[in-house]
Amino acid sequence: MDPMVITVSAPATIANLGPGYDLMGLALDRPRDTLKVRLFKGNSDSVEVSGIGTETISTSPERNSSVVAGRAVLKAAGKKGYALDMKLKKGVPPRMGMGSSGASSAAGAYAVNILLGSPLNKEGVLWCAMEGEMAACGAAHADNVAPALLGGVTLILGFDPLRVVRFDPLKDVEAVVISPEVENGDEKTRLAREVLPASVPLPRVINQMEGFANLLIGLVKKDPKVMGRGISGDVIIEPARAKLIPGFDHLKRAALEAGAYGFSITGAGPSVFALCPMKRGAEVGKAAKSKFVKHGVVSEYAIYTCGEGGASVVP
Amino acid sequence: MDPMVITVSAPATIANLGPGYDLMGLALDRPRDTLKVRLFKGNSDSVEVSGIGTETISTSPERNSSVVAGRAVLKAAGKKGYALDMKLKKGVPPRMGMGSSGASSAAGAYAVNILLGSPLNKEGVLWCAMEGEMAACGAAHADNVAPALLGGVTLILGFDPLRVVRFDPLKDVEAVVISPEVENGDEKTRLAREVLPASVPLPRVINQMEGFANLLIGLVKKDPKVMGRGISGDVIIEPARAKLIPGFDHLKRAALEAGAYGFSITGAGPSVFALCPMKRGAEVGKAAKSKFVKHGVVSEYAIYTCGEGGASVVP
Repeated sequence: MDPMVITVSAPATIANLGPGYDLMGLALDRPRDTLKVRLFKGNSDSVEVSGIGTETISTSPERNSSVVAGRAVLKAAGKKGYALDMKLKKGVPPRMGMGSSGASSAAGAYAVNILLGSPLNKEGVLWCAMEGEMAACGAAHADNVAPALLGGVTLILGFDPLRVVRFDPLKDVEAVVISPEVENGDEKTRLAREVLPASVPLPRVINQMEGFANLLIGLVKKDPKVMGRGISGDVIIEPARAKLIPGFDHLKRAALEAGAYGFSITGAGPSVFALCPMKRGAEVGKAAKSKFVKHGVVSEYAIYTCGEGGASVVP
Repeated sequence: MDPMVITVSAPATIANLGPGYDLMGLALDRPRDTLKVRLFKGNSDSVEVSGIGTETISTSPERNSSVVAGRAVLKAAGKKGYALDMKLKKGVPPRMGMGSSGASSAAGAYAVNILLGSPLNKEGVLWCAMEGEMAACGAAHADNVAPALLGGVTLILGFDPLRVVRFDPLKDVEAVVISPEVENGDEKTRLAREVLPASVPLPRVINQMEGFANLLIGLVKKDPKVMGRGISGDVIIEPARAKLIPGFDHLKRAALEAGAYGFSITGAGPSVFALCPMKRGAEVGKAAKSKFVKHGVVSEYAIYTCGEGGASVVP
């Protein structure tokens, strides 16, 4: 066995969780990206990509999220003269708002750090994973990479220096993700940023803080009703992006009436999600899907649990 | 002994705590308002006021915070044909941003609820206390009345219905309040609201959420450094109101350099406060006071601890 080879995986994630825009994210139990990494003396990186949605993933080592993140670890650890050979199997569908590039980035940084004997702490690895996210998205966000790396629910407390806190996920809840059959291409991801308001009336800011407080306190006190109220309480980002999702308000109402604790957009969308009591996800998913139908949108739903674990070694 | 007479007290409070604008507040151990209440069959309320700053306190039963709050409890409990006679001894100085009317309101609602055999739960009493605050301030805020009633640190999670969560205060910290020798009269309180921005750029909203997250997580994890970073992290309300406080930025820098965990404005000001390690309050207070001197402002500082208890019966 070659000790300079490792296979790791990292999960899909839901960023923002409503009012936790840019700061919070939640790891799902699946799907996961799987990444095999070989570290060797050399000076030329390479990467192969297989699995779901590969046509959207760069195989240029300079632009592939896993390679960029892994190379950032090499640089941060001061290792010169090494090259990376990666085989990335995509399980997280790209461009659905499920943290696809975040999972690939987290896997790349996590794997290389282990191969080097773990020279970086979790913030260091996260920082490198953010470089992978930057390669894919053009902006260094941590809201998907943090939960993809650490699992559970993550909250960014600061960027300079990077500080992140991780919470165990709530038990006895399901997350149902409803994905319309349109993909959020580069154009739409850009639009999802452009549609955001440049400024926000102060009273609405206070309302957003109230939603954010519910989200955090529900999480801390392990109260899914309070957390759900928080997830549903985004009065800034969600109303802006909801315009890009046909029938969003009807979906939200139907999901909450069907028993969801909370409902919002996953990341930049177009998928939406609901936090539900255990065994209620299917009913909520069906209710939302039927509203999509009324707005002429074909969709699928899938039921997940919240993932304890983030990036991990595949034995 | 007449069972229809009770004496209670309620403490000074620091509202907002930086980015917790309108939602959060912290009870100090002192000073306190003391209120003696007599409930009797009758139809005419009366109130006498003594103590600090009484010239600013209404003795009209229709406008006095304690009476208005007490009467709100009578109404909410469905009690008719009763009258209130109150003797309010002000210990909390009015118009300094220390929750003076909040303490009087909390005391009034708390006392009458006990005299009636506690028909209202804590949210019910808080709601009635907010009516007292409305009589004094013209707006129904809960950020001072909630900690004055419940003690510790309080966070409003919603107004419809009213939901409030209370945290035990941090141990081993001091709060030093530095009060300039100018009072925040009606004019200045109004100005402190008017100076706030009508709208806020979105990136600043995200920064504010980050500060708020530090405040809450520091509180939950009982980490005064993180909580202090949160208190200091208000990028919306504080910069606007700081313009009304000569030398504010210099005071803040000096306080943090002298070892404060966090520094901000108490409520609408003009007092400022610092959360400090135990036994460091005096040094921080002196540092801030000397900066006030350089800006031509005479000030006094006082050192408090965080109060476990809110409104309580005086034996």
